Amino acid sequence: MGCLDDGRFGVELENGVSIGCGVEEENGAIEDAVKVLLQGLGEDVNREGLRKTPFRVAKALREGTKGYRQKVKDIVQGALFPEAGLDNRVGHAGGAGGLVIVRDLDLFSYCESCLLPFQVKCHVGYVPSGERVVGLSKLSRVADVFAKRLQEPQRLADEVCSALHQGIKPAGVAIILQCTHIHFPDIESIFLDSNHQGCVKILVSSGSGVFENKHVDVWADFLSLLKFRGINMDKIHFRGSSDPCWCPSQSSLSAKVSSKIGPVNPVMVTAVASIIKSLGEDPLRKELTGTPSRFVKWLMNFQNNNFDMKLNGFLCGGIDSLNVDEEIFNNKKIYSELNIPFWSQCEHHLLPFHGVVHIGYLIPDGFNPIGKSLLRSIVHFYGFKLQVQERLTRQIAETISPLLGGDVIVVVEASHTCMISRGIEKFGSSTATIAVLGRFLTDLTTRALFLQSISSPTSSGEQ
Amino acid sequence: MGCLDDGRFGVELENGVSIGCGVEEENGAIEDAVKVLLQGLGEDVNREGLRKTPFRVAKALREGTKGYRQKVKDIVQGALFPEAGLDNRVGHAGGAGGLVIVRDLDLFSYCESCLLPFQVKCHVGYVPSGERVVGLSKLSRVADVFAKRLQEPQRLADEVCSALHQGIKPAGVAIILQCTHIHFPDIESIFLDSNHQGCVKILVSSGSGVFENKHVDVWADFLSLLKFRGINMDKIHFRGSSDPCWCPSQSSLSAKVSSKIGPVNPVMVTAVASIIKSLGEDPLRKELTGTPSRFVKWLMNFQNNNFDMKLNGFLCGGIDSLNVDEEIFNNKKIYSELNIPFWSQCEHHLLPFHGVVHIGYLIPDGFNPIGKSLLRSIVHFYGFKLQVQERLTRQIAETISPLLGGDVIVVVEASHTCMISRGIEKFGSSTATIAVLGRFLTDLTTRALFLQSISSPTSSGEQ
Repeated sequence: MGCLDDGRFGVELENGVSIGCGVEEENGAIEDAVKVLLQGLGEDVNREGLRKTPFRVAKALREGTKGYRQKVKDIVQGALFPEAGLDNRVGHAGGAGGLVIVRDLDLFSYCESCLLPFQVKCHVGYVPSGERVVGLSKLSRVADVFAKRLQEPQRLADEVCSALHQGIKPAGVAIILQCTHIHFPDIESIFLDSNHQGCVKILVSSGSGVFENKHVDVWADFLSLLKFRGINMDKIHFRGSSDPCWCPSQSSLSAKVSSKIGPVNPVMVTAVASIIKSLGEDPLRKELTGTPSRFVKWLMNFQNNNFDMKLNGFLCGGIDSLNVDEEIFNNKKIYSELNIPFWSQCEHHLLPFHGVVHIGYLIPDGFNPIGKSLLRSIVHFYGFKLQVQERLTRQIAETISPLLGGDVIVVVEASHTCMISRGIEKFGSSTATIAVLGRFLTDLTTRALFLQSISSPTSSGEQ
Repeated sequence: MGCLDDGRFGVELENGVSIGCGVEEENGAIEDAVKVLLQGLGEDVNREGLRKTPFRVAKALREGTKGYRQKVKDIVQGALFPEAGLDNRVGHAGGAGGLVIVRDLDLFSYCESCLLPFQVKCHVGYVPSGERVVGLSKLSRVADVFAKRLQEPQRLADEVCSALHQGIKPAGVAIILQCTHIHFPDIESIFLDSNHQGCVKILVSSGSGVFENKHVDVWADFLSLLKFRGINMDKIHFRGSSDPCWCPSQSSLSAKVSSKIGPVNPVMVTAVASIIKSLGEDPLRKELTGTPSRFVKWLMNFQNNNFDMKLNGFLCGGIDSLNVDEEIFNNKKIYSELNIPFWSQCEHHLLPFHGVVHIGYLIPDGFNPIGKSLLRSIVHFYGFKLQVQERLTRQIAETISPLLGGDVIVVVEASHTCMISRGIEKFGSSTATIAVLGRFLTDLTTRALFLQSISSPTSSGEQ
């Protein structure tokens, strides 16, 4: 730990990039770059769903990195209150030594390694000194200043810790962050790896002052009061600077498979670098040099061509529609395939959404003509596009319907990154969409039966 | 249901109160009114913790009622996207008939009956028509426009439903709100009623178009996909207009006990009415006429006098400090009283915070000199003031320490309304504070033992 570094902090405290007349210009530059990316994906930037995407992406990115334009001093000043400590007694409490903890602050940040947002559950503790305490909400606001930048979990923890220590001047500050990074499979590897994990989690900590030594009793107090958050001393891996980068885009498998997508389009890479610059960051900062090409590699998973034919070929070898007579029709049974994971990209904001697909269908007993792996392939096929969830749901239903005799229901449940990372910050929200075909439209009992079978909480949550 | 009322909606859609040069003037009027309230509580408006409270309250109230100054049209326009429906098949999906649900939107609103914020978990469903869908985040943003006003749950549901129906022009809209209103006990009744429930919950719904009839299949689909949120058809009580007001300030017991507090100060009542006017509401609207005096009655629970002596009298008949010799000292055992509920008022924002207090103490085996009810009384006594959690923790520790021989630990866990209702909206967050006295300072094993005994999730959450 020992995150205190006055020199660096001085910069952080004052580094509000001056805004003013440059904002529109910078947004314009981001919009131009996003158009280049969309064109690189083979998309028509004038189609209705995409027409305002450059504007929306620029707005979301500016909002999501507004920490570059905020000063900690402005936040903490005026929110320090005198609060007496204990009077003539052995112990600590109040404004002198009584630990104060704010738990479960939901934040999000942008991964500096791949530019995707990651979720942060932030726990802050500090020990007041000098008989003054800080307004509780400031702990959250200061954490947010550093979260709303291009970040890496350990640095985020260290920066929040330093800033609070300098701002409050307490006996010490402790930070624990539970970070969750979405792990997109690559379009080619997903068909091979059905056990792909949907996210990468990491736990980091930082401490200053009395928390500088992580074995002291005050850490034990802090961790005791977090233990019912699934955290305890044993589980915490205190990261060192030599630990590998947590971002899935830097894992070797990812890098290997991504290379199959082909050489990275240099025009797109330049466009991403210009976005980073417009946000107020230095694209040549060590940790950011590889970011543009990693982002472009990831983005190319969603390009609007190539893979159509491959899947079409796969489907042509598939199963014809069932032509069954009346008697068999009445003996149809309900089959279902629940919780098929999917990953997709919101075309309105170029942000991930991901979750599970539930498929129900009616076919004659014993006739089941379609395998789980084909259903999974169809789901992935439609996921790996610039999408909206409503269309994804319809496309899956329309594709499987002729293969399965026409009586089909598809439910998609998803978490949308665009619901948390653009100022709206609805962390727990999720979206469900339904497509209903054939007998599922009129046979309410069968439909209800299927919907009731989706009984467990959605597994689409990132945490 | 049948909430659609085009006439009323027309007003809501356009009713953005014009702002402009009047904002500072209105904030000034609110600040003046808050000073009147603080003086009515017997407080010194110039003491450090309160000096900026009028400013903070005015800012929070303007932020929390900004829905009066927002227009639904501005939000929905530009976020309707063409999306094809099913092609030549029996069924519905996509932009024509496929149900779209956004679940678990955390919002808060202000109770028009007592001016306290209440929490809302909002679930929105709509059935697209005309081959167009709306950006998912707009469902949240529109709900928020109506939540950020002085509200009542059923009207909130109806207004969100109407606004979305008019804005999206879908086949129908369904709204379900799970609302939670903090239920403050009155200072006098709390000492009598140890089973006081900390909150009042209500479930309301509203539907338009295909959701107008609540027995139709599309409601069944919607509810099916909410069932793992603790909601199902059986549990929903569809409220009628004749149902009594849900706000605890209007329940008969509350009204009866409150009357003991004495006649309501008319200057304070006038001040609250002027705040309501400054927010853009009509204090003479039927539902608001009793609100100022209800708010003042509630506020008077926290006045800075009178009750001091009562509790002091109670304590004087209490127990002396234990004077025990060395041998007995070493045989001290740990006793604890966990999860004592408390209610308090944040002096920085005049907003509630509430949760539980855990008390641990070391006394010789068999000597336990203090009853649960006295500990509860002490907790309530310090709760019913304008407070900050750090001070509350210290005061409880300092008060019980001489009664219990000096070896005392106090942990307070609380949810702060000011962490959700002022633009920061950290819904799941909670705050823990610790005071440690005597042997608990040095005897780490004993301290850890006590902290580990606080094992269950905090019961301070409002939901």
